[in-house]
Amino acid sequence: MTAIGIYGSSGRMGRAITEQIDAAGATLAGGVDAGGDPAVLARMSDVLVDFSTASAIEAHLAAARAARTPLVIGTTGLSQAQHAAIDAAATEIAVLQTGNTSLGVTLLAQMVREAAARLGTDWDIEIVESHHRHKVDAPSGTAILLGEAAAAGRGTTLSELRVDGRAGLTGARTEGTIGLSSLRGGSIIGDHTVLFASEGERIELSHLAQDRSIFAKGAVRAALWLAGRPAGRYRMGDVLGL
Amino acid sequence: MTAIGIYGSSGRMGRAITEQIDAAGATLAGGVDAGGDPAVLARMSDVLVDFSTASAIEAHLAAARAARTPLVIGTTGLSQAQHAAIDAAATEIAVLQTGNTSLGVTLLAQMVREAAARLGTDWDIEIVESHHRHKVDAPSGTAILLGEAAAAGRGTTLSELRVDGRAGLTGARTEGTIGLSSLRGGSIIGDHTVLFASEGERIELSHLAQDRSIFAKGAVRAALWLAGRPAGRYRMGDVLGL
Amino acid sequence: MTAIGIYGSSGRMGRAITEQIDAAGATLAGGVDAGGDPAVLARMSDVLVDFSTASAIEAHLAAARAARTPLVIGTTGLSQAQHAAIDAAATEIAVLQTGNTSLGVTLLAQMVREAAARLGTDWDIEIVESHHRHKVDAPSGTAILLGEAAAAGRGTTLSELRVDGRAGLTGARTEGTIGLSSLRGGSIIGDHTVLFASEGERIELSHLAQDRSIFAKGAVRAALWLAGRPAGRYRMGDVLGL
Amino acid sequence: MTAIGIYGSSGRMGRAITEQIDAAGATLAGGVDAGGDPAVLARMSDVLVDFSTASAIEAHLAAARAARTPLVIGTTGLSQAQHAAIDAAATEIAVLQTGNTSLGVTLLAQMVREAAARLGTDWDIEIVESHHRHKVDAPSGTAILLGEAAAAGRGTTLSELRVDGRAGLTGARTEGTIGLSSLRGGSIIGDHTVLFASEGERIELSHLAQDRSIFAKGAVRAALWLAGRPAGRYRMGDVLGL
Repeated sequence: MTAIGIYGSSGRMGRAITEQIDAAGATLAGGVDAGGDPAVLARMSDVLVDFSTASAIEAHLAAARAARTPLVIGTTGLSQAQHAAIDAAATEIAVLQTGNTSLGVTLLAQMVREAAARLGTDWDIEIVESHHRHKVDAPSGTAILLGEAAAAGRGTTLSELRVDGRAGLTGARTEGTIGLSSLRGGSIIGDHTVLFASEGERIELSHLAQDRSIFAKGAVRAALWLAGRPAGRYRMGDVLGL
Repeated sequence: MTAIGIYGSSGRMGRAITEQIDAAGATLAGGVDAGGDPAVLARMSDVLVDFSTASAIEAHLAAARAARTPLVIGTTGLSQAQHAAIDAAATEIAVLQTGNTSLGVTLLAQMVREAAARLGTDWDIEIVESHHRHKVDAPSGTAILLGEAAAAGRGTTLSELRVDGRAGLTGARTEGTIGLSSLRGGSIIGDHTVLFASEGERIELSHLAQDRSIFAKGAVRAALWLAGRPAGRYRMGDVLGL
Repeated sequence: MTAIGIYGSSGRMGRAITEQIDAAGATLAGGVDAGGDPAVLARMSDVLVDFSTASAIEAHLAAARAARTPLVIGTTGLSQAQHAAIDAAATEIAVLQTGNTSLGVTLLAQMVREAAARLGTDWDIEIVESHHRHKVDAPSGTAILLGEAAAAGRGTTLSELRVDGRAGLTGARTEGTIGLSSLRGGSIIGDHTVLFASEGERIELSHLAQDRSIFAKGAVRAALWLAGRPAGRYRMGDVLGL
Repeated sequence: MTAIGIYGSSGRMGRAITEQIDAAGATLAGGVDAGGDPAVLARMSDVLVDFSTASAIEAHLAAARAARTPLVIGTTGLSQAQHAAIDAAATEIAVLQTGNTSLGVTLLAQMVREAAARLGTDWDIEIVESHHRHKVDAPSGTAILLGEAAAAGRGTTLSELRVDGRAGLTGARTEGTIGLSSLRGGSIIGDHTVLFASEGERIELSHLAQDRSIFAKGAVRAALWLAGRPAGRYRMGDVLGL
């Protein structure tokens, strides 16, 4: 059985992953939180899953690299320097980094990319996401992931096209831009819609999360897929063969 | 037959209203645009409809008041001073001012007000609207109208509660606030959704406009209802008996 | 503290209600399932909640009536004879019977009734509901409850207007009818939308349940409200003052 | 300039296509309706578009074949014998037959096929469509087209999986089936949603038609693409390079 180690094991995602490991036919190698020793866990594990904080990512990469243990990174809010550190580690070990581990969002992102590529810039793209009232940032990491997919479909990056929080005298919409809107309320787990709007017709591609267990299940599935892979940087889509 | 005069008759709404007058069993008294004489039209009409520009509103009110002719105002973007001028005119003539003349939006606003009053502040309120790519401001006048209805249901005004274009490190949602989000794309006539989100459940109240003729039909209906009314300031809801 | 007794205490709703009683500041008088003695529980309780099966309703009504204990009935699929038995019991004790105990659905039903009353029959009404793959009947009890609310708003009953599962050569829509559609899939707790569609515009009123605890919370709230009430047949809307 | 001939030129779609020909830089070869001579039109045209009735399809195929003129068929409700006649004609001329000529629906169908192929049968598929009150059959041709795409993605045909108009004591959902639901109301041009629902998450893929001109534009685009093609049976997806 594959032994999975968890960085950030006492956080909400860490605990949810722990609950899913048995059902997936794997075993828990152990868990580490702030203050624990990432190097020991890396040596004990066949594969590592990291849902801790962005500031710990370099230490976790170093531990995984030293032990030659593949690493799934679900931590969000990574800086460019941290992404560079992931790239460096991926020359020696298998690393899969993703903003969303659910099967549904991964497929949605792929479809968004294709739709953006097929539909001309006379189809305007807008992304709207809804989350619970306790979320402290906007837009969500998943909305950004979907925006990146749309931008990639049009051969560019989201930072070139992005329009956040439209309000006031905005002027007419600039062709090719991607709008991002964020709703907050109640206990919504996470809904995302990508709208493609043209003259006379619209396409809407949506994902609705009902239960947080989907993210834990996807993280375990990604870990099992990554264990034993050669060095390289992988995406969630690779797990699904997209 | 009731003779309807139109201020702003060559604009998009003015022309749409002209097309609906016959079907409603009324007759067109005439139309005036920039450069025309509002006083003459006011004397020729049983009731006036104004879809011109905010800057012309005082002149139109003066003309209507002098001729004792009721006036429906659909012009948006009015200042506080212009609202005060409407109140002053309403002491002598019947004036109905509204941000949206459609039957559906009028009923929706009433339902939003009631829902906001019945549901406690543990139900978060968010408003999202979608319009075509040519719209130059955000949020829409109708979104603001719906936000005012929600705020009124909670015994306050939208300006006290309003959060526009949420983006960045927002912190957790502040209880009682009303979020406003605006999507822009394609040729969307105007969709509005008011979301009430609590722990474990959501209510969504939506209006979708497919065709601009609904606004013209509603304006004519309001004009026919207003003709012959005593002085006072009326709302679209009065037309529907809400 | 109010002591609440539960008929059907080991079923899914019975267990969920048991979990909510403490948080609501009440106490559990006890629970009874098939084989237990409803009369003893009725005497021990300040108020009873019944989420058992339709076939047990007459026995539960008799026990509640003998003990003069108010009764909340959430059991669905009641026959006309069973509704008559409820009416008879309500001459002596307080009985609240409802197809849905959630606060949101109760408010939605009230809004549907008002909208149906305000909007003429040129506004077509359609109801669509989505539930998980294990549900064995269609449409849902809540969809029927909403259809009854719409029909009541138009001064008639759902059985006069109802069109189920439209398919084949249906002919054009008959004015005034109410269509019911049912989707089944995954683990959807229960989504309901009532559509009002006219020429050029639509209103959609929706409720989305994310978590079954909302039904248990509402049932406890209804029980606390009903305890000590005079004889009569009550509705969920009475609890909310609608 | 490509000369386009129209079978069914005085019908709603025929007239809409006529209006779009100029804007597309083509020219109208002429139009034929019941009583006209399809053979003459076929000889005058570089490409033909047929939006007449199913019963005329064999005559139109014969005329096109005799004149070696490519033919776009948008007529719906074709029998198996008529599909066989199309296949036979496609050995000699280029024929493109489709249930929906809009760009958006064509892309949506492709995405539905892919999603159905990628997601296992633990993702239930439901299709819901909404159309105006005058539509006389259910489900829509486009809903069937989308259902066929989903079934194809799972390596089978819709007729094997289809469940129409679910109502009554249905029992639990049978794994792998595809449900079809139809809403009718107001002046809705045509909305289609394909739902994929699993444990804890959902994907919804939707197309909303605001204006019938999208079908005419797509038909002209298909005609221009088909003119000059070699013999064969084509799909709308070929026009988009899908």
